Amino acid sequence: MGVLDINCEVAKGCLTEFISREVASAGFERGILALSGGVDSSLVAFLSTEALGADNMTALYLPYKTSDPANERDARTVAEILGIELIKIDITPQIDLYFQSFPEADRLRRANKMARERMSIIYDHSARLKAMVIGTSNKTEILLGYGTIYGDMACGINPVGDLYKTQIRQLARYVGVPERIITKPPTADLWPGQTDEGELGFTYDEVDRLLYYLVDKGLTEEELKKLGFERRLIERVKFLMEKSSFKRRLPKVARLPKEAFAGAWETS
Amino acid sequence: MGVLDINCEVAKGCLTEFISREVASAGFERGILALSGGVDSSLVAFLSTEALGADNMTALYLPYKTSDPANERDARTVAEILGIELIKIDITPQIDLYFQSFPEADRLRRANKMARERMSIIYDHSARLKAMVIGTSNKTEILLGYGTIYGDMACGINPVGDLYKTQIRQLARYVGVPERIITKPPTADLWPGQTDEGELGFTYDEVDRLLYYLVDKGLTEEELKKLGFERRLIERVKFLMEKSSFKRRLPKVARLPKEAFAGAWETS
Repeated sequence: MGVLDINCEVAKGCLTEFISREVASAGFERGILALSGGVDSSLVAFLSTEALGADNMTALYLPYKTSDPANERDARTVAEILGIELIKIDITPQIDLYFQSFPEADRLRRANKMARERMSIIYDHSARLKAMVIGTSNKTEILLGYGTIYGDMACGINPVGDLYKTQIRQLARYVGVPERIITKPPTADLWPGQTDEGELGFTYDEVDRLLYYLVDKGLTEEELKKLGFERRLIERVKFLMEKSSFKRRLPKVARLPKEAFAGAWETS
Repeated sequence: MGVLDINCEVAKGCLTEFISREVASAGFERGILALSGGVDSSLVAFLSTEALGADNMTALYLPYKTSDPANERDARTVAEILGIELIKIDITPQIDLYFQSFPEADRLRRANKMARERMSIIYDHSARLKAMVIGTSNKTEILLGYGTIYGDMACGINPVGDLYKTQIRQLARYVGVPERIITKPPTADLWPGQTDEGELGFTYDEVDRLLYYLVDKGLTEEELKKLGFERRLIERVKFLMEKSSFKRRLPKVARLPKEAFAGAWETS
């Protein structure tokens, strides 16, 4: 049994309970999520539908013109299996209109603008439907900062942020996400041919094991090397975690010392 | 001397020091902000330019077609006084294009979409310029939730989040923000005729005093009434604070119990 193996029955129970409780305690009955056709959002769709009921769930499929049509088919398959509403909104017009003024923008700028446009549309429809925005970022992405702050990382609640990508796959298989979705190469689908593992430079299998020992177990670099992890990978992962720490925090607000509060200071 | 009076010299020193330190520690030299022509963003522009230098500051003016032209004049005045770059980008085309598909959307949905479009543009230009996004939400807005999550409340750092609106005005006057900007009625300028105080139903003068005694001093409702605050205002403010608490927190992430981690559990 591997260190990343999860007890799917326990995990599924906890996470559906989390979704029911948090949606209700925020005063909502409905949930909404962006369904990309990938394994993370498919799993969240399954868990959320179990928790809230199919009639209370809305999925948005938000393609750009370069999005792989296979992802739309996969998103539609998930929505059909679950019996939930799927709304398709093409983000191409407003993205292309904006970048007409900035034709020199590189693909990272374009990708981040798209991720934030999707967030903005999900929140708009969450207001329309009085639905809680349910996030889909997994623990691997969150720790590596492999996502857009105020974009795909933005949500009301996140049921899968304590699961590494490889654990997401286990639970997805357990709840009945179609195998094709679980085994296809993970991608943000922000440009043709993009894959997570190609862009990151390592596989989820190796980085998840490393993150487990580094973050959850707190092993030192020496101990990690003894377990067989290469120094280059360890340093790359530590660098990504450090560089992205701002994405996991609230913005820092300046706090003034009491000397700055003249009135309060004199009357207290 | 009123309880909300601040020592402007101390506050200015602390806040410029905060901006210099935080921008540098994040690995940046430059700053960027949305300059609306209002007092909050004008003050932040003054403080940031003092901290980083005019050549390192960029201000964006991001109007919608209904924006009051007086605000553009005020934003330009501030940029000229400080000698900083001001870029104007009209958000009307992409906002109107999006709402063509949702003509029934009310003005709150439109306002939130605009706030998020502005955020998305500021972040796009922050990437282009390698500049830190400097936020402009004041303590009153933050506590009342009078702002758009992942919209105008989004930033890298916020130098003025510990100052109530009335304290913002004091410091703005001290650093040299033009008097016209300080005294005009505060507005998000999201629809014609909108003013903060009209929408909120109370003045900043009264709510800032109430928030000071409620939040900073921790007074009970009975004690607040003895100070002359009306029960209706106290309850309204408490309601707004409670209803908007999600805007001041990170999204809640489900945490799984150790029983869910089968592999780790058996090997630990």
